Amino acid sequence: MGRHEDEDDDHAAEEEQGEERPASTVSTESLLAASVDVEEEGAHGGTQSSHRLLAYSDALLSIIATVMILPVAHTKMEDEKELDENLQLLLGTKMAVYLMTFLIVTVAWAAHIRLFQVIVRIDDTLALLNLACMMLITLLPYTFSLMATFPSHILGILLFCGCVMVIGVIQSVIVLYAFGRPFLLQDQIRASEDHSVYKRHILKVLLRVPLMCLLAGLCSFFCYQLSYVLLALVIFLPYISRGVLWCRDKLLGPVEEDPEQVMLYSFLPSEPLSKERVEAFSDGVYAIVATLLILDICEDNVPEPASLQQRFNNSLVAALGSYGPEYLAYLGSFATVGLLWFAHHSLFLQVSRATRVMGLLNTLSLAFVGGLPLAFRLTHELPRAALRDERRAVQASCVLVFGAGVFQLATWVAALQGGGRQTLRPAVRYGGPEHIFMLAKLALYPAVALAAFLLTCVLSRFSVTIFHLMEIATPLAFLLLRLMVRVALALLRRLFCPQRRQPENGEENITSRVQFNPLII
Amino acid sequence: MGRHEDEDDDHAAEEEQGEERPASTVSTESLLAASVDVEEEGAHGGTQSSHRLLAYSDALLSIIATVMILPVAHTKMEDEKELDENLQLLLGTKMAVYLMTFLIVTVAWAAHIRLFQVIVRIDDTLALLNLACMMLITLLPYTFSLMATFPSHILGILLFCGCVMVIGVIQSVIVLYAFGRPFLLQDQIRASEDHSVYKRHILKVLLRVPLMCLLAGLCSFFCYQLSYVLLALVIFLPYISRGVLWCRDKLLGPVEEDPEQVMLYSFLPSEPLSKERVEAFSDGVYAIVATLLILDICEDNVPEPASLQQRFNNSLVAALGSYGPEYLAYLGSFATVGLLWFAHHSLFLQVSRATRVMGLLNTLSLAFVGGLPLAFRLTHELPRAALRDERRAVQASCVLVFGAGVFQLATWVAALQGGGRQTLRPAVRYGGPEHIFMLAKLALYPAVALAAFLLTCVLSRFSVTIFHLMEIATPLAFLLLRLMVRVALALLRRLFCPQRRQPENGEENITSRVQFNPLII
Repeated sequence: MGRHEDEDDDHAAEEEQGEERPASTVSTESLLAASVDVEEEGAHGGTQSSHRLLAYSDALLSIIATVMILPVAHTKMEDEKELDENLQLLLGTKMAVYLMTFLIVTVAWAAHIRLFQVIVRIDDTLALLNLACMMLITLLPYTFSLMATFPSHILGILLFCGCVMVIGVIQSVIVLYAFGRPFLLQDQIRASEDHSVYKRHILKVLLRVPLMCLLAGLCSFFCYQLSYVLLALVIFLPYISRGVLWCRDKLLGPVEEDPEQVMLYSFLPSEPLSKERVEAFSDGVYAIVATLLILDICEDNVPEPASLQQRFNNSLVAALGSYGPEYLAYLGSFATVGLLWFAHHSLFLQVSRATRVMGLLNTLSLAFVGGLPLAFRLTHELPRAALRDERRAVQASCVLVFGAGVFQLATWVAALQGGGRQTLRPAVRYGGPEHIFMLAKLALYPAVALAAFLLTCVLSRFSVTIFHLMEIATPLAFLLLRLMVRVALALLRRLFCPQRRQPENGEENITSRVQFNPLII
Repeated sequence: MGRHEDEDDDHAAEEEQGEERPASTVSTESLLAASVDVEEEGAHGGTQSSHRLLAYSDALLSIIATVMILPVAHTKMEDEKELDENLQLLLGTKMAVYLMTFLIVTVAWAAHIRLFQVIVRIDDTLALLNLACMMLITLLPYTFSLMATFPSHILGILLFCGCVMVIGVIQSVIVLYAFGRPFLLQDQIRASEDHSVYKRHILKVLLRVPLMCLLAGLCSFFCYQLSYVLLALVIFLPYISRGVLWCRDKLLGPVEEDPEQVMLYSFLPSEPLSKERVEAFSDGVYAIVATLLILDICEDNVPEPASLQQRFNNSLVAALGSYGPEYLAYLGSFATVGLLWFAHHSLFLQVSRATRVMGLLNTLSLAFVGGLPLAFRLTHELPRAALRDERRAVQASCVLVFGAGVFQLATWVAALQGGGRQTLRPAVRYGGPEHIFMLAKLALYPAVALAAFLLTCVLSRFSVTIFHLMEIATPLAFLLLRLMVRVALALLRRLFCPQRRQPENGEENITSRVQFNPLII
């Protein structure tokens, strides 16, 4: 996979530009000869659009990001036992591991996006290198959970650091390979005179992580606590360095930065993030989370023929009836995840370009979404007797739904920053009805979850009933949302601008609307 | 979700056409008023590109298609026990259930593609209806596996038929809704004078399936065997009816068909199939299959701190060493699935339009891919002592790899049908070096699997060694493929066209290449 393969490529690149050779000019005989001649031509051979490679990588990464929710999901819960302290501790630890691996994988994903915003075309070698990189990333959650389970064994640390280092080395090879073939790079860099400035900058950023991991690995032989500090630094380094820069800017005034370089590997909050990849990754997470419970149901809830005879007197209806709570949990979580996806979909329809801050907020929303199926399952399966635990499970579900919804809302608010000039489609930048519908869509779940949470505090006896009502009411609310918003707007208009009914009074009308506008945006 | 919401939509459609309103003309005041005025304008409001909805649906469907592999994967295999007759029977049944559900879900997926090739734009109502439809499709594997486990209980049949019927009804509602808003339809239908011809044809095809399921459900009360015959008819009906038509054409000569209608819901082998959706679905299957083993590893192979103390003398290295075979199985299956994806990716880069036959062959290839992780696991986990079983596991793996590869090759051959005029990119239609590389890429896995299979028959003692060699050699072969093909071509050229070394003899040269060409295409 070195320099050698450059000469082996061929002329597929021409198709990328959409050129159609007229059939008559391509004589069958000339093509065999071409297989040899092309080498001498030095054509940019075998290059392909990277679109599908990235879609596949996003699918893999979204599965991997959510994988550590499974140990939480499958924690044994005895029917008779209450949700005791030990179990809560265990669940808490596993939840923490899930959140951390989610964060780590999304950091790897963000690095992958950065890399392939620089390299916009691929060839076979890059595709294979990327697959190798993906394979190593899939190992990260496992090595991390080893590390979390055995914090004092250095093997976990070494494996984790080893993985990160190899990933860094492969990514550096990808960068070197791509800069050796500038036609693979994005236009801005390709057009610039000196590639090596970019190359050095990117390699410097890329290699920082494996080098710190090497240090952490070496440290673990002497003092493993120090390794953890170093690893935490690796993950939060971009945030820390941005924070320091931000403080400096606030104190000393903003520093002029090179406008060309600033947008690549800059870790600025406004650094662009491929919108397509944010969507693809989110779709993957929503899809895997929506089907997580059905995976279990398909596997576990088909009764054994033998037990059907013994326990249920050969009645399939009775046997399936005993699984009732699990079906309910599935339907509830699918509907919630589906509708959250729907809100996300509506949100990104209005977004023209994503930024790093939006990506971060979106990631946080997804992390909450990942926990939903479990919370729902807990809510539906806990024995009716244990009142306090039941309420706690319902409240945990409400918190997760609230978190997922609120961070979606925050993504929207972040997109509105600076008037949305760089992030939103023109028609939604300046308020208007689409704004209100979007706000209503995004605020529906947080509002409902908050209301349910508060209600369970007051009426703890009916917490499960409240939860079921929420599950049924929210999809209906989505169907009727436009109607509801319209009615609410009409009411508001009645209250604030009664002149509206006589549209002839042009001047007066406009001023009243100006007063009203700040209220709804 | 009836007629009423039509009026509730707004003017987002304008953005779809990429119009950018200059900022100065959009006064903030005028936008609130717009929220009312738009209703009267009757704008095609709230329509959106269906791209992301379809991507999400494909992600859900690909997970659901592969879900029934999990019960096969998690069939308990005792360490000491041989792969006895009972277990084989159980595995065989579960494998059959997996293959059937895969087929059923892909039939539902094909119906979904057909539907959204007619409806090319969506609005909020359609998005929500589609989510409801998806939820019901996710229940299909479960109801089918109930039916397979308890063939004589009619509840399974009723649930399955009920699901299919509700899906059919929702899809009919989607069709009626979309035909009520022609701007959602594809251009050809929108431009035609009489929509109702299309509407009637599509509804007729759509409702055939739920009606037959209704019949099957009713039959089950009298004679459940008849229900199964009817359900089998539902799945194979398009194939049967096409087969009958094909026979008629062969016997009586081809019948002229209406060229406009022929391409929609025609079930012709050349009916177009959205290439993007075939790719998205395949990506989903490859991604979930590649990560299936790591899901298990993350969940099961983190040793308990207590057992680490007891069994392994607190040595994490020893504990992880005992999981060695599972890591090997993961790496082997990830690499194989990854490289099969790579071959698939290269194949579809050359395809400009997919047809129904290609889709079917691709689905068969994916069904084999779905079985790979299990076969690999079996191969790596079976006790070394049981020589015969081990060989059988290795051979099963070889058969699966061979099947996955051969159907990819068949997809390529199907794309070449008729000179590839409608299916391939211009530059690869007429042979040439890209053809040879493509053939080599696609033929590599079937050839290697076949060779390994034959070798294990002769050298059954070394079957596992052969398998490991195959796992290591194939990725290397992919890296060196272009080199190898080039060397092979050069050798062939030496043998068949020795004149090639003097390119001055123009005329002679070409004739020799003409002779040679049929050999390599």
